[in-house]
Amino acid sequence: MTAPLSGITVLGLEQAISAPLCTRHLADLGARVIKIEQPGFGDSTRHYDRVVKGMAAHFVWLNHGKESAALDLTDAADLAVFTGLLEQADVLVSNLGPGALGRLGFEPGDLVERYPRLIVVDISGYGRGGPLDHKRAYDLLIQAEGGSCSITGTPGAPAKPGIPVADVGTALYAYSAVLAALYNREQTGRGALIPIAMLDVVAEMMGFALNQVIHAGTEPEPVGMGSPMIAPYGAYPTADGQTAVLGTTSDREWRRLTTDLLDRPDLAADPRYRHNHDRVAHRDELDEIVGAWCAQRDLADIQRAADAAGIGNARLNGVRDLAEHPQLAERDRWRDIDSSAGPLPALLPPALARDWVARSGSVPDLGADTEAIRKEFGGTA
Amino acid sequence: MTAPLSGITVLGLEQAISAPLCTRHLADLGARVIKIEQPGFGDSTRHYDRVVKGMAAHFVWLNHGKESAALDLTDAADLAVFTGLLEQADVLVSNLGPGALGRLGFEPGDLVERYPRLIVVDISGYGRGGPLDHKRAYDLLIQAEGGSCSITGTPGAPAKPGIPVADVGTALYAYSAVLAALYNREQTGRGALIPIAMLDVVAEMMGFALNQVIHAGTEPEPVGMGSPMIAPYGAYPTADGQTAVLGTTSDREWRRLTTDLLDRPDLAADPRYRHNHDRVAHRDELDEIVGAWCAQRDLADIQRAADAAGIGNARLNGVRDLAEHPQLAERDRWRDIDSSAGPLPALLPPALARDWVARSGSVPDLGADTEAIRKEFGGTA
Repeated sequence: MTAPLSGITVLGLEQAISAPLCTRHLADLGARVIKIEQPGFGDSTRHYDRVVKGMAAHFVWLNHGKESAALDLTDAADLAVFTGLLEQADVLVSNLGPGALGRLGFEPGDLVERYPRLIVVDISGYGRGGPLDHKRAYDLLIQAEGGSCSITGTPGAPAKPGIPVADVGTALYAYSAVLAALYNREQTGRGALIPIAMLDVVAEMMGFALNQVIHAGTEPEPVGMGSPMIAPYGAYPTADGQTAVLGTTSDREWRRLTTDLLDRPDLAADPRYRHNHDRVAHRDELDEIVGAWCAQRDLADIQRAADAAGIGNARLNGVRDLAEHPQLAERDRWRDIDSSAGPLPALLPPALARDWVARSGSVPDLGADTEAIRKEFGGTA
Repeated sequence: MTAPLSGITVLGLEQAISAPLCTRHLADLGARVIKIEQPGFGDSTRHYDRVVKGMAAHFVWLNHGKESAALDLTDAADLAVFTGLLEQADVLVSNLGPGALGRLGFEPGDLVERYPRLIVVDISGYGRGGPLDHKRAYDLLIQAEGGSCSITGTPGAPAKPGIPVADVGTALYAYSAVLAALYNREQTGRGALIPIAMLDVVAEMMGFALNQVIHAGTEPEPVGMGSPMIAPYGAYPTADGQTAVLGTTSDREWRRLTTDLLDRPDLAADPRYRHNHDRVAHRDELDEIVGAWCAQRDLADIQRAADAAGIGNARLNGVRDLAEHPQLAERDRWRDIDSSAGPLPALLPPALARDWVARSGSVPDLGADTEAIRKEFGGTA
């Protein structure tokens, strides 16, 4: 069993979600992650709530397996510690506000000159240049600006996806960029400067909708539990008070759905519904037909019949259902992590090779490792 | 300028979104990606619509920069070509249906035995084992099963995030896993077998909500344009018929919002609103106060004032607004890619180091490269 990133040291000048999730996944694979926090206050997610034995739900999710060093980068002694850290670090991930790194004396372009093997990931909301580069950026703001909310919810009632996709997506692009840069450094001996703008991340994830607007000229409408691009595909109440989710993604599946599941070969033969773009145009009719069929049956019967017909199906779950999901429990996806308040459950990272071991570190209290890091990296306490 | 993955060959036994987006990003960084498609039909997203000069919006988004080989893996001659490909490939990414790789004679565990330097990413809906491992998986199904829809929309009207976060998230975990495995192979000389279950990906992205349910015992409610964990944070109509999006993520920002923007120091001093968890409990009142203030002002004035007060703000945009966003245009985020129907606009990948060049390849027609690949990899035509 190996930890692919053992020996790699990562500094996180980080807050909230995007940089912390990136560095947490680096820690999962064995990197040593040192989270630099503001003395006395720390990462703002520490203060969102106190639901996890006095700690915040977001903070615990995103920060286990890291060390916390509370350093005041405007203080000369702490700055010396941070410089000592930079000299030995492989990776710096930052998502401070616009221009903050430069104001602290660490302009990203200068850093990669000074430390040629260092990989610097500079996360911002809107990138450099353009009319918005000075603006603060949070997940909701970027999702709003990036059109993600406009294709979520129902017509006239846009909604923010509950999963913070701008933050999480940025975290994953940052994480993969660090890994690409580590691989590249093996070939070239050089680090990298990688700017990532959250708006660009959301725009990438909106690629299908952008193509539709650019080429067809029509604005996609949000369709509740459906998908704007394919039909039928949605959530339908069942006779036993649950909600079945059914969908078809191809003409072949449509024929199976109608013939083998609904017992309606007339629909399969109907030219009005032949191709996906035809069915999208008749979304409401088709939802009504599928909905009426589901309303007469219990969820378990619907799922059995749909499985037999080769039609994808699911149950509409809440968060409690997910926490208790047998598919997570029976596959041993939960592990214990540590904290000053005792052990806590956490999920294994989603992508581990068969012979990689995931680090199960602890959730650091603010500044828990400050003194040790001062000693190790040459500042004075 | 370098392409970090030049020299790397990737095979995609792929369809829809998750594996294709993973391999597209590998192609963006210079890998040679050979997409294996079923003769005559190909990737199902080819058939979603015809909006991009006869090609489908999803397909174009996800597949530029790849070669397409139409191979029938149940045919001996085509199988020989595929085996020739496997012998030279560095990476195989698959998201065929449950068990399909094994039925084709390519059990992932056997592949990594036979080709010890090969990196195999085996994407499934629910992983191996557990009650659901046989089930088909599409984005909506996994988002429903994983609770993502239950925290999106409004109470009683759950909604699927318009961005397919289960698919996109899986793509990005697969992409980063390939990069981690390439880095690891430099150290160990060995490839990797990496199973990724879409349900595990959604569960990871739901980490904050899982912590809340597990520890506080309360199910998060969807809150439309808001965020379930912080307040005030939402979308507010303006006097000029637009929608402003404003939010605060910390107690300090709350004090700035009330004192410097709303001119309501009484709110800053009010102990009922002091901490984020207090404000979450009074979300409706606070939304009303912020909403009334926005309703009396034009969007531009609101944004100027909010910027001056250090309060994050945005405009609620549609997809057309994103396509025409000055922040993308002025920062040169658009490039041309090629296709048999002529050049098409596409965004640069979100995470590129300053000295990495992004490949701008073309959108392959089905089987466009079959004959060339047959010749190169030893089968007969």
